[in-house]
Amino acid sequence: MISVGIIGASGYTGKYLIKFLNDHSNVRELYLYANKSAGRNLLDIFPEFTNNVNDRVINSVNQIEKTHDVYFFALPHGKSIQYAPELLNSNKKVIDLGADFRLDDAKSFAETYQMEHTATEFLSSKIYGLSEFHDNYNGTDLIANPGCYPTAALLSTIPFAKNISKNIETISTVSYSGLSGAGKKADTSLLFSENYNSVKAYNVGTHRHQVEITQELNKFIDNVNYSLATHLLPVVSGIYSTSIIHLNDSIKQSQVDEILESEYSGSAFIRIRKTPPELKWVVGTNYCDINVKALDNKIIVTACIDNLIKGASGQAVQNMNKLYGWEENLGIQKNLTE
Amino acid sequence: MISVGIIGASGYTGKYLIKFLNDHSNVRELYLYANKSAGRNLLDIFPEFTNNVNDRVINSVNQIEKTHDVYFFALPHGKSIQYAPELLNSNKKVIDLGADFRLDDAKSFAETYQMEHTATEFLSSKIYGLSEFHDNYNGTDLIANPGCYPTAALLSTIPFAKNISKNIETISTVSYSGLSGAGKKADTSLLFSENYNSVKAYNVGTHRHQVEITQELNKFIDNVNYSLATHLLPVVSGIYSTSIIHLNDSIKQSQVDEILESEYSGSAFIRIRKTPPELKWVVGTNYCDINVKALDNKIIVTACIDNLIKGASGQAVQNMNKLYGWEENLGIQKNLTE
Amino acid sequence: MISVGIIGASGYTGKYLIKFLNDHSNVRELYLYANKSAGRNLLDIFPEFTNNVNDRVINSVNQIEKTHDVYFFALPHGKSIQYAPELLNSNKKVIDLGADFRLDDAKSFAETYQMEHTATEFLSSKIYGLSEFHDNYNGTDLIANPGCYPTAALLSTIPFAKNISKNIETISTVSYSGLSGAGKKADTSLLFSENYNSVKAYNVGTHRHQVEITQELNKFIDNVNYSLATHLLPVVSGIYSTSIIHLNDSIKQSQVDEILESEYSGSAFIRIRKTPPELKWVVGTNYCDINVKALDNKIIVTACIDNLIKGASGQAVQNMNKLYGWEENLGIQKNLTE
Amino acid sequence: MISVGIIGASGYTGKYLIKFLNDHSNVRELYLYANKSAGRNLLDIFPEFTNNVNDRVINSVNQIEKTHDVYFFALPHGKSIQYAPELLNSNKKVIDLGADFRLDDAKSFAETYQMEHTATEFLSSKIYGLSEFHDNYNGTDLIANPGCYPTAALLSTIPFAKNISKNIETISTVSYSGLSGAGKKADTSLLFSENYNSVKAYNVGTHRHQVEITQELNKFIDNVNYSLATHLLPVVSGIYSTSIIHLNDSIKQSQVDEILESEYSGSAFIRIRKTPPELKWVVGTNYCDINVKALDNKIIVTACIDNLIKGASGQAVQNMNKLYGWEENLGIQKNLTE
Repeated sequence: MISVGIIGASGYTGKYLIKFLNDHSNVRELYLYANKSAGRNLLDIFPEFTNNVNDRVINSVNQIEKTHDVYFFALPHGKSIQYAPELLNSNKKVIDLGADFRLDDAKSFAETYQMEHTATEFLSSKIYGLSEFHDNYNGTDLIANPGCYPTAALLSTIPFAKNISKNIETISTVSYSGLSGAGKKADTSLLFSENYNSVKAYNVGTHRHQVEITQELNKFIDNVNYSLATHLLPVVSGIYSTSIIHLNDSIKQSQVDEILESEYSGSAFIRIRKTPPELKWVVGTNYCDINVKALDNKIIVTACIDNLIKGASGQAVQNMNKLYGWEENLGIQKNLTE
Repeated sequence: MISVGIIGASGYTGKYLIKFLNDHSNVRELYLYANKSAGRNLLDIFPEFTNNVNDRVINSVNQIEKTHDVYFFALPHGKSIQYAPELLNSNKKVIDLGADFRLDDAKSFAETYQMEHTATEFLSSKIYGLSEFHDNYNGTDLIANPGCYPTAALLSTIPFAKNISKNIETISTVSYSGLSGAGKKADTSLLFSENYNSVKAYNVGTHRHQVEITQELNKFIDNVNYSLATHLLPVVSGIYSTSIIHLNDSIKQSQVDEILESEYSGSAFIRIRKTPPELKWVVGTNYCDINVKALDNKIIVTACIDNLIKGASGQAVQNMNKLYGWEENLGIQKNLTE
Repeated sequence: MISVGIIGASGYTGKYLIKFLNDHSNVRELYLYANKSAGRNLLDIFPEFTNNVNDRVINSVNQIEKTHDVYFFALPHGKSIQYAPELLNSNKKVIDLGADFRLDDAKSFAETYQMEHTATEFLSSKIYGLSEFHDNYNGTDLIANPGCYPTAALLSTIPFAKNISKNIETISTVSYSGLSGAGKKADTSLLFSENYNSVKAYNVGTHRHQVEITQELNKFIDNVNYSLATHLLPVVSGIYSTSIIHLNDSIKQSQVDEILESEYSGSAFIRIRKTPPELKWVVGTNYCDINVKALDNKIIVTACIDNLIKGASGQAVQNMNKLYGWEENLGIQKNLTE
Repeated sequence: MISVGIIGASGYTGKYLIKFLNDHSNVRELYLYANKSAGRNLLDIFPEFTNNVNDRVINSVNQIEKTHDVYFFALPHGKSIQYAPELLNSNKKVIDLGADFRLDDAKSFAETYQMEHTATEFLSSKIYGLSEFHDNYNGTDLIANPGCYPTAALLSTIPFAKNISKNIETISTVSYSGLSGAGKKADTSLLFSENYNSVKAYNVGTHRHQVEITQELNKFIDNVNYSLATHLLPVVSGIYSTSIIHLNDSIKQSQVDEILESEYSGSAFIRIRKTPPELKWVVGTNYCDINVKALDNKIIVTACIDNLIKGASGQAVQNMNKLYGWEENLGIQKNLTE
């Protein structure tokens, strides 16, 4: 039984962290910290928790207790590098849902986030927590939880990058994300009236997550030729990700099916589908549903996740479970049997 | 051919004013003024106007030209009383889409809007511009354009208040408005993610528009017993208004049908429906679609409008047309014939 | 540990019955029956259940096993009176989510549903299962689960009908329901493109649920003057219900607050709110969130539920729990403590 | 002044044909024909037309008058080849919004639509009416109006296929279409409750429109390597189309900008944007808004249209205008000047 602190408890990802960790059978106590919402009552921020989560005052990020075992950071980029080092140096575990520790290279971080990295000593020892591709969580106290777009894009492409890297010429991902992915910010571009009935692409080819995906794919493919086109989808939750992989040779459906099956057999949260998945199947869950289609010398992979769960808080708890050697779905999903 | 100025051109109602007035065959020139958006280009604010409206710089509300014939105000309450008097005193015409001149009584304004009324000399001479119930626009230069909820509620209830006032015991309106009714404000409660999949009532029995509706109904019914319950509807545009009128006696369907028909025959923008209307029929138009159902000693009236058009900018142009003695649908709707 | 059969497993309410009963700690086995979907695999109908509910073939309603302890009926009206009698006569328990047993009077049923009632012997012994107002479930095997609109409307109004019936003159409910309330029917009026961006009232003053609500209110108020105006809301799940109660005398806020509190203290699924609730707070849950506002001689009660859960399947399981004397929230909601 | 017949007037594209042609200054009379809706009144099918379009009875497709000058077909595939030949042989003009005449090759039609082509004599003389790329409409009476996905995809890619065909290695389009694209069919998969909150890919790499796009691109690129991935977007109207073009060499932003500008200067309905367009800018219009981004050896083009207008009925009227040598935006868009 452990004590957990959530730093950044009042945003959309904070909400799901509270939900999962409040119900987690191995979590003994849960403390909440926030910046602007410090001093407010939890149930004023999330009235939907009434009767399910005990009310309490949100603490200030400036007064983080040292008494917890694990700290989940759900803050804007640049904040984790400020607060996490002291905790890590005290042998605390940190699971960062922000971007601060995802990039392996300080220079790449500086270019991408326009900010100096001030905790570079942790960059090499951290785990990039794409859970399905990490089994060994020993020897680290810091997990960089993947971004939402990278989670869907990498789960769609790594199986092929691993198994047929030499055949891959280019990979392009076209992703659509629900509006919650932009966070709970007082910004007129995120208003209901601006987004209902609409769609827009943004940061085409320049999204920060492209750097993160490229870094990870480069571990399997030399100098991967990758591009990401991100779009806002007029729903609250979910990412729909369509990846087109061009090959230098033709491939059969049976081959791509086998690759997916061998990579994901035993994964609690990956569901391989015979047809392209529907977003509603995964919303509210930690699943990534995935389908692959071979088209001569192309592969098209469609995948979807709940951006706030598998793309953030659910995967973060999954990472905590693996860090402690617990069942990976503890607190996230009941293991149903009849 | 007249010259028109729009004061508050960059909000949702401003957009429709530009659209209608730009196409209006009797409008010679159109000038735009705004507060925060002053100095910006029109097409940066409304890129959807490209190719249909010429680009221009938005002027500042602090430098309103005196050369226009009519001024449309689309500003938050308290602003028209600041800018309009000087124009009115120069014999300019003012059509105010805000609340400043809607209430007949300065004390009522002060109580409702928590603000002193500083242009009380215009309160008695103004027209409350519910177009369908005003024929004589002579002798005034100031039109107070009705609120969005009042437009739907009054068009639903005045026919009965006029014709069977002695039978009416109580009137209750339950209204649902699309999110654009709340304006284009950087407020987290108006975010897409906060409103999609949701509905909420607000200001139940205390909405400012209740005062306005009550004032107008009192002109037909002594001390009307009226209540308004307003809700946010997860669409951009439209108000759906359901009014329950309790009577002290039973009434027949044929009677209520006749009342509606006699009141609205010849009205270009009222469409009497045999079944409750669907909101999509009126969105994007200046119509109010309306249905009435007699149920023994009750009447239930359902009506809908586009809150930004018939509930704001469309009705404002309709008022301008009537003020000048033009066809009431000029610039708002083509008179289609085959 | 009991054996349960769901008759009508492939519709929207069937889905939630499967979800709740599959996870219910006192349910030993779960059998599924359907009409048109008989012979199909469960996971083909509900792919979202993959990994959480074991796949199986849906059985035909024509071959219902007699071996279950409880039968949930989720069929169109007229079907339960056909199948339930034989089961009830074999001392099985039946929880009917349809309308067949809700009305106490066979004549009223025939008028309302245009169909002869052929199982009238069960009408008087059944419980009308508005759970919050039934404590004694002894002596019956048949529960008529309330309709979705009646659940929200009665939870909003019975507290006042019970406590201040003599003051009540009229009650009017204006309700908005998500589209799932209309079921999964191949009907063009239910298409996405017909309902997005829109709202419509329907069956104003003539909805079948009005008969049901009136019947229940008449148990507290002689000849209640009640009307219901139902609307389609462009969301999938949820009912938002606004009830206006006119009184013959004024009432204070403190009085109406006390009435609600005394009626609902100890109810696991009623959450009394200080402001009108937001629909999103209850979607996906068995809660009814409720707020009351006193306005001189009127009361306005706003309440919301998930129409498929508290308005159907959740309340049905709640009824099963009470029938067996179990905690009312078993299988529906965890009792969270920290 | 011409006489026009619409064959298939009661569907979503029929509605917009009526709207545009009813207002068209060169259309003298408009006759409506339909299959299932024959004998019904227009205003019962489209109540939103009340006061704007005169009511009339819809005629049967089995009694098409020979007196019209132009016939618009908006029928399911396989129907135009049945009705159009007789009209074409009588020197009438036909604009087909269906798929029957889009493919140049009868064999390709048979494979794609699983149906014999029975009017092959018209395949070579017809114009594939992607208006922006046809100037000479002489010598034909038959226009095959492009499909909705092809309109957006081809307007995005033909400029590059024309100008830098030798550099293009692969083209992939990922498209999202609003639900109206699936038509007004009584199909449970198109229900509101099945699509709100959701997205799904379908016919990945096998959509019929892929054949059509490939045919047209092959006119510029030998054996183009093209793939299309289509998705359903939870809005009513609009297609958002993202095309990724891989090149064998790097390209500069200025080059791709110049290509777009030179191809579309003077096009009334193409708006080149400096940032990716927003779908709401084009909904309800005949515009195609388009943006291009050069990324080293890749080009990403984002474009959007209203699928029912530029992707169907608007473009069909645009084609009629060009066929007659009129201004291309007559009846579709006013030419606004101040």
